Amino acid sequence: MRTVRFRDPAGNVRRGEWTGRPGEEITVREHYGGRVAFGNETFSPDTVDVLPPCDPSKIICIGSSYEDHVTERNTSTPNRPSFFIKPPSTVAAHRETITLPEGDHRFNCEAAFGVVISDRCNNVAATDAMSVVSGYTCLNDISNHDDCAEQDWVRATAFDGAAPIGPVISRPENVPSDASLRLRINGELKQDSSIDRLTVPIGDLIEELTSFMTLQPGDIIATGTPAGVGRLSDGDEVEIEIEGIGTLAHSVRIP
Amino acid sequence: MRTVRFRDPAGNVRRGEWTGRPGEEITVREHYGGRVAFGNETFSPDTVDVLPPCDPSKIICIGSSYEDHVTERNTSTPNRPSFFIKPPSTVAAHRETITLPEGDHRFNCEAAFGVVISDRCNNVAATDAMSVVSGYTCLNDISNHDDCAEQDWVRATAFDGAAPIGPVISRPENVPSDASLRLRINGELKQDSSIDRLTVPIGDLIEELTSFMTLQPGDIIATGTPAGVGRLSDGDEVEIEIEGIGTLAHSVRIP
Repeated sequence: MRTVRFRDPAGNVRRGEWTGRPGEEITVREHYGGRVAFGNETFSPDTVDVLPPCDPSKIICIGSSYEDHVTERNTSTPNRPSFFIKPPSTVAAHRETITLPEGDHRFNCEAAFGVVISDRCNNVAATDAMSVVSGYTCLNDISNHDDCAEQDWVRATAFDGAAPIGPVISRPENVPSDASLRLRINGELKQDSSIDRLTVPIGDLIEELTSFMTLQPGDIIATGTPAGVGRLSDGDEVEIEIEGIGTLAHSVRIP
Repeated sequence: MRTVRFRDPAGNVRRGEWTGRPGEEITVREHYGGRVAFGNETFSPDTVDVLPPCDPSKIICIGSSYEDHVTERNTSTPNRPSFFIKPPSTVAAHRETITLPEGDHRFNCEAAFGVVISDRCNNVAATDAMSVVSGYTCLNDISNHDDCAEQDWVRATAFDGAAPIGPVISRPENVPSDASLRLRINGELKQDSSIDRLTVPIGDLIEELTSFMTLQPGDIIATGTPAGVGRLSDGDEVEIEIEGIGTLAHSVRIP
């Protein structure tokens, strides 16, 4: 099941199921408390505003988690994952036009496989980690390359719109362990990898993070990016496609 | 006015006014929408659980913002403020016993003057900054010194309990521009400074932050710490006192 949150043509925020292929149809099957109310309504995605599929209280991003990206950056794989945080104000939606901060900056664009947390949790063992995962989403880790020399990447990665997410949360069983992950800018393929090249297992990430930090429902772990980071220019159309999830598309405006 | 959020003896979460000197009395004057409902109830602070005075979606911390702390760390004042982020899961309350992460770590404790945001805002000019400030609070920036060598201070500063805040939000007019700021551990004075030694004006901080990041009601800017960082041990009793706000007190447990 792929769940989507959207604003219907009448202006109501609803949750539904994105059935068929991404882009084809959204069926409303709303959940009230523990009961499932089956609706028969369907919408064309073109007639609704697709909203971010969850409201993270924090996005924890992992650096240097794909070997080829580490090689590309001339760094080395750390002996433990490196983390950085994007606050809720970074979230942007599928099909949004994101206005990046003013100034003469170079912006990078990195496709990431996002793990969405289902439950408030801490001290989760790696072997139990899937019990706190509601599913997966696409995330674009947009960064301002010029400010990456700072101690913490706040100017570099925590600006408004620095984390487009969506379009859906896809249940883990829909996503193969070797799912492809691709970034396209204006249709040109920039990243083409697979989530099986992640050097850190998701269970281990959740175990370590929850050893010191409570995760909340809707929080996202952005598991890092492979080689082929894209550089953004004003007007670019970005697509991040992950097998079993779908395609997160957005455009950028650079003032 | 100093506003406090607390759980009354019947278990209700309420907002009130902390009248008199800190520790003396909490008066309930609840605000419903635009109207003010005057209550006549008063509580002794000892009979209620004081809660964090706001729910930040993010805490933005400023590094190297007091000259004497910069000297103490053998660094230099940067040409612009350095920022790091504590997510909502770091928040702890007045009088809480905070359990710090397990492991053989050295924990530091730094008193900070916290600026609480009143309104969703971006692109705020320095001269208008006070229009988006609801007041001030005390914040303890607890960090794990051993992980400060990492690129981003997530393991170092974003663990549960790393940001005790409170006990109140004090309106700006209550806090003199040269308000004293003190840290005591087990009654021993560790930091003794004044907020007028901040090298970066609050208006400038708000102007720069809101140039790239939307601030939300309840968000906090922790404006940094003066010289005299405290080292924490299991069982320590910490007090952060800022003139015009009051004293934030908590204890720590180090497993």
